[in-house]
Amino acid sequence: MVEEFAQQEQNETQDEDGYVLSPRVISAILFAVETQDQAKLIDLMEPLHAADIADLLEQVNAFDRRRLVELYGRELDGEILSEVDDGIREEVIALMRPEVLAEAVRDLESDDVVDLIEDLEDDAKEAILASLEDADRVVVEQSLSYPEFSAGRLMQREVVMGPEHWNVGEAIDFMRETEGLPEDFYHMVITNPLMHPIGHVTLGKILGAPRSQLLRDILEPGFRTFRVDESESDVAYAFNQYHMISAPVVDDDGRVIGVITIDDAMNVLDEEHEEDIMRLAGVGDGTLSDRVSETVKQRLPWLAVNLMTAIMASLVIAQFEATITALVALAVLMPIVASMGGNAGTQALTVAVRAIATRDLTGANVWRVIRREVLVGLVNGLIFAVIMGAVGMIWFGSPALGLVISTAMVINLVVAGLAGIGVPVVLERIGVDPALASGAFVTTVTDIVGFFAFLGLAATFLL
Amino acid sequence: MVEEFAQQEQNETQDEDGYVLSPRVISAILFAVETQDQAKLIDLMEPLHAADIADLLEQVNAFDRRRLVELYGRELDGEILSEVDDGIREEVIALMRPEVLAEAVRDLESDDVVDLIEDLEDDAKEAILASLEDADRVVVEQSLSYPEFSAGRLMQREVVMGPEHWNVGEAIDFMRETEGLPEDFYHMVITNPLMHPIGHVTLGKILGAPRSQLLRDILEPGFRTFRVDESESDVAYAFNQYHMISAPVVDDDGRVIGVITIDDAMNVLDEEHEEDIMRLAGVGDGTLSDRVSETVKQRLPWLAVNLMTAIMASLVIAQFEATITALVALAVLMPIVASMGGNAGTQALTVAVRAIATRDLTGANVWRVIRREVLVGLVNGLIFAVIMGAVGMIWFGSPALGLVISTAMVINLVVAGLAGIGVPVVLERIGVDPALASGAFVTTVTDIVGFFAFLGLAATFLL
Repeated sequence: MVEEFAQQEQNETQDEDGYVLSPRVISAILFAVETQDQAKLIDLMEPLHAADIADLLEQVNAFDRRRLVELYGRELDGEILSEVDDGIREEVIALMRPEVLAEAVRDLESDDVVDLIEDLEDDAKEAILASLEDADRVVVEQSLSYPEFSAGRLMQREVVMGPEHWNVGEAIDFMRETEGLPEDFYHMVITNPLMHPIGHVTLGKILGAPRSQLLRDILEPGFRTFRVDESESDVAYAFNQYHMISAPVVDDDGRVIGVITIDDAMNVLDEEHEEDIMRLAGVGDGTLSDRVSETVKQRLPWLAVNLMTAIMASLVIAQFEATITALVALAVLMPIVASMGGNAGTQALTVAVRAIATRDLTGANVWRVIRREVLVGLVNGLIFAVIMGAVGMIWFGSPALGLVISTAMVINLVVAGLAGIGVPVVLERIGVDPALASGAFVTTVTDIVGFFAFLGLAATFLL
Repeated sequence: MVEEFAQQEQNETQDEDGYVLSPRVISAILFAVETQDQAKLIDLMEPLHAADIADLLEQVNAFDRRRLVELYGRELDGEILSEVDDGIREEVIALMRPEVLAEAVRDLESDDVVDLIEDLEDDAKEAILASLEDADRVVVEQSLSYPEFSAGRLMQREVVMGPEHWNVGEAIDFMRETEGLPEDFYHMVITNPLMHPIGHVTLGKILGAPRSQLLRDILEPGFRTFRVDESESDVAYAFNQYHMISAPVVDDDGRVIGVITIDDAMNVLDEEHEEDIMRLAGVGDGTLSDRVSETVKQRLPWLAVNLMTAIMASLVIAQFEATITALVALAVLMPIVASMGGNAGTQALTVAVRAIATRDLTGANVWRVIRREVLVGLVNGLIFAVIMGAVGMIWFGSPALGLVISTAMVINLVVAGLAGIGVPVVLERIGVDPALASGAFVTTVTDIVGFFAFLGLAATFLL
């Protein structure tokens, strides 16, 4: 019965892609808002997960969002708030009545409250902190005292621990007696008398073993801890690399003060990927719900950098004005050489930036990878040199012009390979995020080399 | 004592970045290989996690890899094989003696064996299947019968299940009596007599509840299942969106046949991100360990597409040869307009491609987002129009030329915004991966519009 009901509910709210927020559902919700039909609205939103409601709030416009929150108001829970994009979170919070907000936040785990309020303005932050019970507020304030993007911010404070002399029976009895175990936990952390963790046991092992089994004899292999000030990016890397599920966080004295679980690490990994993609494209931390003015501000700096590099390339062309006047075919063909170099460079740099992010590009293989990129550039350069040589010759009837564009193509694609790998590697060594700045450098190099090689060869050999 | 030892071991093998595969460790390993010092090699590799050993094998060259595997041979376990890049996996397998290989694979869970062999050549696949025990082989072959990239391929077959009438005590007794519980499991799946899942209970709840507690009264909220033929990308999306830890997979009759855990979903998410980044840059499925010939083959098609679009842009320029001959400053300035358009277009399309991938761009907000991108293009276009107008005027002393480049800049940046959002949306509607093809289309549009607007305006108003 339960299952049939669940099945039916699914059919009603999912479209054929299996995605619950179908255009049909969104229209129905907006219609309920339009007609101020609260019962219908609650009915429609009831089956939605908090994460889907957050998506819904992001996708409708500000006017509908206000009306929707006001109509649905008393039902909005804390989980929705912690799921919603930073960009509109303050807006949604401002719409909620204080008592609804307080209610919503009190139900969250400490790490979710931290995640929820860390980017808020001071006023909103104070309002939420004030709504917490004293004990919870102290825990949240303590977490906020750790640096942003550190393990301390990421961890939840509730840790299930047991001393090293316990057996399985004692662990089970302890858990039965403990009020309010954390919602999600996967290991019992085993500590020595100094509260230093010596390992952890999976709940599965505890459940599968006889009551007399000593916990310290069924510790998981590959146990590791994180220091509270370790960066969240190192934490995410370790979870992904070593297939971890949860790990304790220790303070400077090596004592357990919290635990990080895989879902938090997955979140960080997701955000870092997003950041890499956005940075490679020269887009700031933009999201779809940002306003025009914010989006302009995010993108302007990178367009300005691009303008500088484009002007530098133009200065190179300006040196050859006389050559171009004498042979205008050069103006027609020169963007091809620059464009092919830019593309080949972007290919090489993307592979390099990813390899650096996943720590696959190290001192052990960097020279081999550089050699490979140069060879790839050479081979691709030769292939396109033949094609462009033929195109140049047929189009403009000049074998010499064909030869010049061929040679320029080979030069620029080899340089593109070299710059595509070299620039990110050097940036990483000097501590600059290669995803952020490589693109501009590499296209500057390929533009300048492309125009210079092509126009320079033409000036020397064609006139 | 244990802790101190662990700490010391860490200090020995980690560099200051906390990354175990430091250049120093790699040098020491290669030195041991060079001197054929097996004891030293095993000593050095002992503390490394299988995932780190896999990275090591990827980072050294083919010659050292062969010598390393031969020297270390008998110690290589299955986990290393399943961690190592597809590109060199066959090479490593070919180096292993059959009995070592058989031993290595027998220890793996069924989903890891599937992951290990699905991309191998038939010979290597047969050899590994033959080394499995009959029961395991049947399970693996069954998994391989599900389509690639489906939930069926991703799931592990070992599921911990209990009937709906059980209480906590019966569940614990069942688990104590079961030999060989899965290594990693986080829920007990509760089924009705037809083996249909009605929900699941976390191990934490089972451990915290009294023995008499009925399981069906402590089911987790938000329970969901996956069909065996559902795509792994939908599975990864659901895990990420709904913060799931594990979920059962059901067959066409709704019976439980396996379970997917968060670490598998995290893996898929990671691979899809990687794919998006690589596709946006026009790089195939390349990795650092690919050979030159493979890399050339991966990148050539995208360079060829780029060549076509560059030639199309050149054809536009060719229409204005007379204009350029009359005013060679146009040749100097024209790449700036095209380049700014290309960059602005790439910014907009990256945001759009990401939003489509995370399902944040839907029918509900697509028109609003299009309007936003056009406005952003207009505002940025006006800003850079003023700057370029001034540059053009000062550089070439012609207010008219400044006005022409300003106008072309505004036109091209508006078009870039429109194309940057429109192209991926249309590609997605017609079922083409927007990450794969958007870039080429958008830069073609911005190149052609950029050159045509600038040179066309110049031909009309300057001559």
